[in-house]
Amino acid sequence: MYSQEIESLLKSKKIKVGDKILVSKGKSTYSGILMPRIELGDTSSLVLKLDNGYNIGVKFEKDTKIRLSQKGKPIRFKPAEMTARKDPNKPTVSILGCGGTIGARVEYTTGAVFPAFSPGDLIASFPELGDIANIKGKKLFDILSEDMTPEHWKVVAKEVVKEIESGVDGIVLMHGTDTLHFTAAALSFMLKDLPVPVILVGAQRSSDRGSSDNLPNLVSAVVAAARSDIAEVMVCMHANMSDNFCYLHQGTKVRKLHTSRRDAFQSVNVLPYAKISYPEKKIEMLRTDYRKRDKKTVKIDDKFNTNVALIYTYPGIKPEFIQSLRTFEGVVIAGTGLGHFPTNPTNDSFTKSVLLAVKNLIDSNIPVVIAPQTIHGRLNLNVYETGRRMEKVGVIGNECDWTPETALIKLMFVLGHTKDMNKVREMMTTNISGEVSERTEVL
Amino acid sequence: MYSQEIESLLKSKKIKVGDKILVSKGKSTYSGILMPRIELGDTSSLVLKLDNGYNIGVKFEKDTKIRLSQKGKPIRFKPAEMTARKDPNKPTVSILGCGGTIGARVEYTTGAVFPAFSPGDLIASFPELGDIANIKGKKLFDILSEDMTPEHWKVVAKEVVKEIESGVDGIVLMHGTDTLHFTAAALSFMLKDLPVPVILVGAQRSSDRGSSDNLPNLVSAVVAAARSDIAEVMVCMHANMSDNFCYLHQGTKVRKLHTSRRDAFQSVNVLPYAKISYPEKKIEMLRTDYRKRDKKTVKIDDKFNTNVALIYTYPGIKPEFIQSLRTFEGVVIAGTGLGHFPTNPTNDSFTKSVLLAVKNLIDSNIPVVIAPQTIHGRLNLNVYETGRRMEKVGVIGNECDWTPETALIKLMFVLGHTKDMNKVREMMTTNISGEVSERTEVL
Repeated sequence: MYSQEIESLLKSKKIKVGDKILVSKGKSTYSGILMPRIELGDTSSLVLKLDNGYNIGVKFEKDTKIRLSQKGKPIRFKPAEMTARKDPNKPTVSILGCGGTIGARVEYTTGAVFPAFSPGDLIASFPELGDIANIKGKKLFDILSEDMTPEHWKVVAKEVVKEIESGVDGIVLMHGTDTLHFTAAALSFMLKDLPVPVILVGAQRSSDRGSSDNLPNLVSAVVAAARSDIAEVMVCMHANMSDNFCYLHQGTKVRKLHTSRRDAFQSVNVLPYAKISYPEKKIEMLRTDYRKRDKKTVKIDDKFNTNVALIYTYPGIKPEFIQSLRTFEGVVIAGTGLGHFPTNPTNDSFTKSVLLAVKNLIDSNIPVVIAPQTIHGRLNLNVYETGRRMEKVGVIGNECDWTPETALIKLMFVLGHTKDMNKVREMMTTNISGEVSERTEVL
Repeated sequence: MYSQEIESLLKSKKIKVGDKILVSKGKSTYSGILMPRIELGDTSSLVLKLDNGYNIGVKFEKDTKIRLSQKGKPIRFKPAEMTARKDPNKPTVSILGCGGTIGARVEYTTGAVFPAFSPGDLIASFPELGDIANIKGKKLFDILSEDMTPEHWKVVAKEVVKEIESGVDGIVLMHGTDTLHFTAAALSFMLKDLPVPVILVGAQRSSDRGSSDNLPNLVSAVVAAARSDIAEVMVCMHANMSDNFCYLHQGTKVRKLHTSRRDAFQSVNVLPYAKISYPEKKIEMLRTDYRKRDKKTVKIDDKFNTNVALIYTYPGIKPEFIQSLRTFEGVVIAGTGLGHFPTNPTNDSFTKSVLLAVKNLIDSNIPVVIAPQTIHGRLNLNVYETGRRMEKVGVIGNECDWTPETALIKLMFVLGHTKDMNKVREMMTTNISGEVSERTEVL
C-alpha cells in the first residue's frame, strides 16, 4: 500500500495498480504502469514501470499530478518468500538475495540508497522473469557488499547447496557490487562438483535511475541460470555502455574495474564464458573449457582462515610494515611489474630490507604469496634479478596470473586446510577452480 | 671491443663495425648491421641492428658462423657521458638514464636482464635520435625501478632542473616500468612552472628481443621532448599491440595495468595528451588542457614525508590491521566500489569495527585518504550510507578520481609540507598537477 494520501487520490481517480498513468511533477512528466509499492519502500513514492521496462520511483509531493492514461491488468503484490506456480515445462531458478544495489530501494528523504528490495519484490516488479523460468525467491540477508565478511560467504554457500539439493536448475545470487568478485572467488573454491550454474548478479545503478542495469543484468542472469550448460560459479554483468548484452564471467577471473560504469566488471586474463544478448535472451558461448551440468551431488568445503593480509607494494615501503604483518598467518603482496617488491640490498642494507622482512615472515612459517598489482597479466620471477632473489627466499606464485583478490581468497581457503608450508605451496600452485589460466589470452 | 675470439674472427673476415653481416647459429641465421658492443655488455655477444631498426644480441658460441654481406659506414662507440655535435637548427634534448629495461643489457649467462645500457650507448645504437634533435646523455643511476625510493625521485628532480637551466628544449628520462608511474606522479608534484616537456620512457621488453619496444618508445619520447608544446611531466609508452604509435600520458593520471604487454601503461579517467605516430614521428594532440612551453624558471619542491602507508581493503579486513597503521603519519585506503571500507557496526560491534579504527587514526591526527581500488572511476561517498559514515569520521578524498598510487604520492608530498589536518585536507583536495579531473571522461 502507498501512503493514505496517494491511496485516496488513486481511489478518487479510479486508478489501480497495473494501470498506465501519467505523473507530472514540476516540469517533468512520467508515463508508465503503476507498480505495487516495493516491500519496505517509501510509501510516498510512486513506482512506475516505463515503456523500456525500467522501474522508477517518483516522490509524491504537493505539485504532483496523476492522470489515468490506460486501464491495465491488476498486479498482485508478492511476498518476499515465495514460490511462483510451477510450470513443469520450464526450468526452475532460485534467486537468493544478499543485498546490494540490485535489490536496493532509494531512501528519498536523503537521496541515499539502502538495500531493501527482496527477490519477491523483483519478481513482482519484473514479471518477465516468470516467462524464462519458474522462480523461487529468498532473501538471505540485506547488507551493502562492502560489509560482507567470510562468515557471509559460508551462509551463502550453505543456502546454495540447500537450493541445489531441492532440485533447482540454476541459482542466481543478487549481491552488492563492491565485493561481488571476492564472493564469486570464495564460492568458486567452496563449492565442489557443482551440478548447475551459480550466478552472482549486481547492479551498478539503483532501480530509481532510468539507466539502472538491474533489469538487463537480472534477466540475463536468470536466462543463464535456467538455460546455460555451464555449471560454474559466475558473475553476470553489463558488458558495455549500452543495454544490448551482458557477460558471464568466470568467478575466479573477474574484477570490478570501475567505480560507477555499468560495465565495471571485466574478465582478467581470460575471455568471459559467454555473452547473453538482451532483450533477445540468447546465449553465445565464448569458451569451451568449462564444467558442464551433471547429476553429481554438490559438496561444500567452507574451511577458511581469514587471518590473512593483502598489501600492495610501493616505492618507499618500509621493511617495518612487512615485519608488522607477522601477526597474520599468511600474506599476499601485490608486487609491481612482473610481481616484484624492492630487493636491492644497496638501497637499505639487507639487514633492514623488504626482502629480509619477507624472508623472516616465511622463515616463521607465514606463507608470502605474490600477485600482480598491474591487475592484468602473468607473474614472472625468472626475468629479472629481483625475481630470482624473491624466489630464493621462498615467495609463492611465480608464473601465476591470478588477481590480487583471488590470490587472497585462495590463501584464506588453503590456510583453512593446512599450515604446512610445503602443502600450502602445493595447494596454492595447483588449480582449484581455474584461478590460474594455462596461458594468457591476448585480448 | 668484443672478445678476443670474436675480434680475431672479424679481423680475419675483414668485417668492421657498421658492416652488414650474416650470423648463423644452429638453425637460425640473423642478418643485420654489426653494432659496437654495448657498454658493460657481454663481450661474447654480437649486437646486430636488424632491418626493422631493432637491435638484438647473439651469443657467440662454437657453432656460430659470421659472413660479410655488405660493407657499411664505420660506427664509432660513443662514451656514456656525451654531447653530440650541436646543430643550431635543431632542438636539444637531454636523455637521463635511471636504469630499467629500456637501458638494459641481457646477461646471457643466466638469461636475466640487468640494467646497464647508458644513454650514450643508445645514441650509438639508435643514430636516428640524432636526426630528431641534438642529444645530450647522462646516466644518473642504474637500478631496476622496483628498487626506486623517494630519495631517487629527489636526485632525478634536481638533475632535471639542472638540465633545464642549461637551456635544453626537453628532457627524456629512461626509467624502469615497474614504478615509472609513481616517479611520474612524484615529479609532477615536485616540479613547478615547468617550461619544457619532461618525459619518462621505459620498455616492457628488453633490447635482445625482436619485439622490444625500446626503439619506438625512445624515438617517440625524443620527438615529443623536442617538438611538442606540452610542458608537463608525461609518460611516453606503446599505445597498442603493434608498433605504429605511442601515447603521451599525463604524469599523475597513468598506471601500469599489465605485467608484460607493451601497451601496459594506460591513462586513467582522462585521455592521453597526444599520440606520437611511429615511424612517421608525427604528434597528434588529443587534449588542449595542458601547460604550454614558456620561459619561466622551473622551481623544485622536494619535501616528502614518506612515512605513509597504502592498503587495499578486502572482506574480512581486521580493525587491528588498521590500528597497526598508527605508526605511520598518513594512510591511503584503496576502498571497494565508490571508495568504501566496511562500516557496518552490526558486523563487528562498533567498538572493534574498521570504521572506528579509521576514526581513531584520524583523531590521532593521522590523515586517512581514500582512493578507488577499482582503479578507474571517481570516488563518491554521497550515494550509500557507508560513504556518509566515512565522511562523518573525516576521511579525505570524496569525489576525487585519482589512482591509489597518485593519492599515495600526493599524501607523501602534502605531509612534507604540513601536519595540520585542516591544511592537509585543503591541499589534498586542491589540484597541484591535474591529479583530479574536473569530470570523468567516458572513454
